[in-house]
This record gives sequence, structure tokens and C-alpha cells, in this order.
Amino acid sequence: MKAFYGDLKLGILGGGQLGRMLIQQAINYNVTVKVLDPDREAPCRKLCDEFTVGSLQDFDTVYKFGKTVDLITIEIEKVNVDALEKLEREGVTVYPQPRVIRLIQDKGLQKQFFKENDIPTAEFQSITNVADLKHAHIKFPYIQKLRRDGYDGKGVYKVIDETYLDKAFTHPSIIEEWIDFEKEIAVIVARNDDGEIKAFPMVEMEFNPEANLVEFLISPSTLPFELHQQAEEIAKDIAGKLKIVGLLAVEMFLDKHGRILVNELAPRPHNSGHQTIEGNVVSQFEQHLRAIFNQPLGDTDCLNNAVMINLLGEAGHEGPAVYQGIEKALKREGVYIHLYGKALTKPFRKMGHITVVDADRAKAIEKARYVQDILKVVS
Amino acid sequence: MKAFYGDLKLGILGGGQLGRMLIQQAINYNVTVKVLDPDREAPCRKLCDEFTVGSLQDFDTVYKFGKTVDLITIEIEKVNVDALEKLEREGVTVYPQPRVIRLIQDKGLQKQFFKENDIPTAEFQSITNVADLKHAHIKFPYIQKLRRDGYDGKGVYKVIDETYLDKAFTHPSIIEEWIDFEKEIAVIVARNDDGEIKAFPMVEMEFNPEANLVEFLISPSTLPFELHQQAEEIAKDIAGKLKIVGLLAVEMFLDKHGRILVNELAPRPHNSGHQTIEGNVVSQFEQHLRAIFNQPLGDTDCLNNAVMINLLGEAGHEGPAVYQGIEKALKREGVYIHLYGKALTKPFRKMGHITVVDADRAKAIEKARYVQDILKVVS
Repeated sequence: MKAFYGDLKLGILGGGQLGRMLIQQAINYNVTVKVLDPDREAPCRKLCDEFTVGSLQDFDTVYKFGKTVDLITIEIEKVNVDALEKLEREGVTVYPQPRVIRLIQDKGLQKQFFKENDIPTAEFQSITNVADLKHAHIKFPYIQKLRRDGYDGKGVYKVIDETYLDKAFTHPSIIEEWIDFEKEIAVIVARNDDGEIKAFPMVEMEFNPEANLVEFLISPSTLPFELHQQAEEIAKDIAGKLKIVGLLAVEMFLDKHGRILVNELAPRPHNSGHQTIEGNVVSQFEQHLRAIFNQPLGDTDCLNNAVMINLLGEAGHEGPAVYQGIEKALKREGVYIHLYGKALTKPFRKMGHITVVDADRAKAIEKARYVQDILKVVS
Repeated sequence: MKAFYGDLKLGILGGGQLGRMLIQQAINYNVTVKVLDPDREAPCRKLCDEFTVGSLQDFDTVYKFGKTVDLITIEIEKVNVDALEKLEREGVTVYPQPRVIRLIQDKGLQKQFFKENDIPTAEFQSITNVADLKHAHIKFPYIQKLRRDGYDGKGVYKVIDETYLDKAFTHPSIIEEWIDFEKEIAVIVARNDDGEIKAFPMVEMEFNPEANLVEFLISPSTLPFELHQQAEEIAKDIAGKLKIVGLLAVEMFLDKHGRILVNELAPRPHNSGHQTIEGNVVSQFEQHLRAIFNQPLGDTDCLNNAVMINLLGEAGHEGPAVYQGIEKALKREGVYIHLYGKALTKPFRKMGHITVVDADRAKAIEKARYVQDILKVVS
């Protein structure tokens, strides 16, 4: 591979906010960045050296794009892996490796991998057709997940009893025992090609029981030290067994019995790591670059308590985005705003995020609630 | 002024590394960034929304450029101030204000300002022609500085005795008593339009007596607390008296008698603030944006000891830049590299910088020396 500074051409599949924040950091290394995305208004379009409009799932488009760069990475896993495998055979470096992306794209293969490698995870069963569902050995209630292309809650269906089976997915899926969890937690880990592995401290999601929604993310988690250790070991274990090069976000549940169960993986920078920009010594974006450039990984320590809120498009609003409350939010100390440069808002579209840091955890949470109340993206 | 998020058009006069790092941070605010620079290969060219090649000193060029934006800022002070004044009268916001840029462009006016406002500074005399020099009331040895366009040691001449007068500058200049200083120090301060003022902790320059050069910058300075207070008060006092909006870098000397004397000002992000990116809660670039957007200023506290080294083009090398030693440097923990994206190197051209952070100050310095030894930019 060419030297990562100066003359390397880095290709990113996907031009959304994750790519945008990756480019913001990659500027320090002076690499040439090319981006492929189907949306001609994608957040990366103006920040990269070359922006190509095209499908991430089309073999020819991805292959042709890949032939113009030295190193390919992704910011979304729904990409054409056949093209990436061909590129890899022809000498283009692809990190994360195509085989890892292929595995993670398919929730069935992911679960199979967990099972074969003794990674703790909820019990599951693969479902190929509706008949399988009628004879499932997993007890009600359970969760049905499409094997492919589920995203942000899409492709997930809760089956409470027989009467729910009518509306179940008919595509290949898995069903998983319903976990009545105590907390959602996540660990982002990085691995470089030398095999060095480093984890960011575990984070936890704060759930709003009224809205039945993840409200925000808190870093670091205040769960007991043993749980930090366990979660970190699990995440490192997965990265090591996958031999992934790059970031791996490991989403987990802590169940009511104190067991940690892996929910799912993302082989790229992740929403649960945005707070690392202000909250940790190196950010997940810097770490991903160090991993794919095969450089020593950076220090992941927390600098402070950090609370991250997604800035979502308001329900009922669609059109050119108007931001309300930003000046008011910035009046509070330790509030940092990241807008993603999306011209149009839609209900629940991720338009940006806010990170609140404070030496006092309770204060950070209080400020985050305040900011969440006053900030709105409308049209 | 338009809201600083989303629809504001920000114009930057100058497209060098300071503009580049400012854009890296401005991405978070989703402003439209336009840049004017005479060099079509300037470091900002690919990162801004619109790049205009043109002279920063030509009235029409600056005026025309300014008419296309809502807010203008600078990353270099050698710009056409007449054009900025006209733009300001016509409703374009210009931060720092043209009158501040005009004052700082002229070392004679700067010194006059210090004198009128009781800002401690070395004794000086204005010189309009060589005859003035023959009857100077400042004693030998002294320093002659051109009033305009001095930069990075250019336009400065040390007059040791009468025999040196032959080679003295003939353009308008000032002469200053020679300060046999103990330390070079600097404080970067920011002021917004509401009048809020915040200073970054004082930094000091480590001088290499053999090479007779500033070797690196250390943050924070370990000089006694009273000196920190004094330097900070002086910097804040200047910002308040200038009523500047934006960053102000205040370079000072600590002389052998323990007096702090102001050397010179820069109304913009500054080389002596690069280490704030990794070393402080907010960086100088984030702070400059907050100031010119008239938002509450960020927390300037140091997170760690940080040592900054400029990565200069090696003497005797001119042409396409080749970087040596980067991988070796990154093997040391806490080393961060910033390359400026300049294709061609020249002797002593600023090609990038390195920041080294460490909880142990002596270790940070040791690592910085090591990095400085092994890193080279050749052609």
C-alpha cells in the first residue's frame, strides 16, 4: 500500500455524515479522498477531492470506483461485496475486508458467527419461510429480524403471540428470544493489520420509557467495573476473531440477570461513537484512519463525561431544513454542535448531533435534556 | 447578520493552513465557505465551497469577493483594508474589523497604540528615513523593523553599532531597544461582539541556543502563576481596548528582569495556538468561529501538556514534497500529525505541524525532540 500521507487515494463507499466526519479528520493526513454515494447532495460532496454519484450496490459502479483508489473503506455496510472482493484480488486494499462486510450484512451469518465462537448472544433460530415460523423453537414473545438490510429499527418485528404471525416478514430472517434488558451498551473497538486492538470505554444508552426511545448516549457508562471489563473483552474478542481491520462497533444488551449479550455489529464508525470527538483523547474517526492506515492506535481514554444526542428531523416536517434553538443551546457551557450539511429535513432524519461535556455527569445529563427540549429541525 | 448555521456565507481572505484548519472546524456549523488566495494550489482549495484565485491586496478583487459573502474573516493580515472598509459600510460583516487590521498591519501604529494605552512594550522610535537613524535616541544594539509586511523574521534587522547602518532598511520602519529576553511567551485571546473575552493559557517557546531558533512551543507554560496572570491580563486588556471581534494572538517577551513586554499582535488564528487542537478543550479555530459568529466563547482549559513543532521544508530541498519519518513518529504515543496539503516544499516552508501530548511534561518534550530529529520534508 502507498504511504498514507500525501499520495494515497482513499475511497469511501457512502457520503453521509460518517464519511463527512471521517474526511474532517483525514484532512490532517493530506490523503486524496474520493467518495461514492447515490445522493448528489450527500454531506460529503463538497469536502472530498472527487465525488461520484452512483449506486453502492451496483457491481460495475463500485468496481469502477474502486479501480481509481488505493484503499477503500466504508461508512455504510450495504455495499456490493462481490465488487470489493474482485478489487481486493486485483490488489486494492479494502478495509474492513469484504469477507467481514459480507458476514455482517447478513444477520443470520452474524448470529452463526457468534454461536460458533462462543460470543454471548440471545438465543436464535434461522427462518427461511413462514412455515418455519409456525414451528419455531423460540418461545413467544420473540423478535423477528430480516437477515439483510435492516437499519435503524427497520426490518424488525416483535411477535408477541400466534396472532402476530400474520404480519411477520416472509423474507429470510432470524428470530431471537425477547430480551427484557436493563441497559443498552456499546463498545467501539479498533484493530489494525499488525493485530493491535484497542477499545473505547463502554457507553450506555439512556432510555426514555415514556417515548419508548433511546434518548441519548452517555460516555463513559457508570455500570460496575466488571461489566466494563466483560464488555470490552467481548468486543476485543470479536475483533480478534474476525481479524477485522478498522473500527468495529459492538452493540450489546445488559439483561435483567446481569448477563451481557451481543446484539449486533457495525464494521465502521458508528453513531454510538460520535461523543469521542470531544469526549475522548482520540475520536473514533482518527482511530479508524489509524487502523486502516496500519498505524499504532491512539489513546481511547475519556477526557470527560460526554452525552450525545442525535438531532433528528421533527415529525411532520419535510423540506428545506430550518434549525431552531441553536444559539440558545450554545449558551450552555460544554455544548458542541455538529451539523451534517443536509439541505432537506424529513421526520427522524439524522440532521446532526450535539455533544455535551461536563465534569459532573448529572449536569451533563441535565444540559442534554435541556438542549434536546429546545433544539428542533423543522421545515 | 444571517444565522451562522446553515445559510451563512463565510469568506476567508487567505487559503493557507490557518484557513484550512478553520474550515475543518467550520464543517460542524454547516456554513458555506468561500476562499480567496493568489495561489491556485493553496491548502484550502479543495475544502471550501468556492475557491477564487486572486490577489488579497487588490482593491477590486477583495471588494468583488466580499460582495458574495455575509461575513468575512482573515487568516493573514496582508489584505486590502480599503476594500474591507467599503464592504463594512455596505453591510458586510468584517471580523476582525478593518480598523483593527489596519492598525496591526503597521508596526508603527501598533507600537503607538501600545504606548497610548499603557501596554508594556520595548522602547521604540519611528524612522522615516536614513537620516533619522543617524540621530536615533535608542541605544545600540537595537532592532530595526519595517513598518509593513514583515513576516516570519523577514523585515527585521539587528543594528549592533554604527557600522551596521549601511545595510539598514530605507523604508519606513521602527527601531526598538534590544531585549535580551529570558523567554518568548504568547497568549491567544478571543473576544466576541457581546464583549465576552477569554484567554487560552499562556504558552512558551523553547529556544535552541545552538541553532539560534525557536525549536518548539510548550503549552501550558510552567512560568510562575503571577506571570500567567500578568500575561493574560495584558492580552485581555489589548483585546478589550481594540474591541476586536475574533482571535488575537499576543506575542510577548519575558525579559531578564522579569518584565513582560508585548512584542507584536496577530488578529487571527496563529502558529502559537496549533497545539490547542489536541491540548485544550476548544481549539483556537473553534474559538475564532464562536467569536466571529458572536456566540459564547468555549472553555480554553488545557487538557494536557502539549508540545508543538512546525514541520518545515528541509534546507536545500525544493520541489514535490516527500515526507520522511512519519510512521516512525506515530509509533510514539500521543503524537498527532497535521499536514497542510502543500504539494511543493521549499527551504523552511511550513508544510505541517506535529503536536505531542503527554501527562508528563518532560516526556512530552523528549518525544518532541525525537520527532523533530526523525521527521524531514525533502524533495
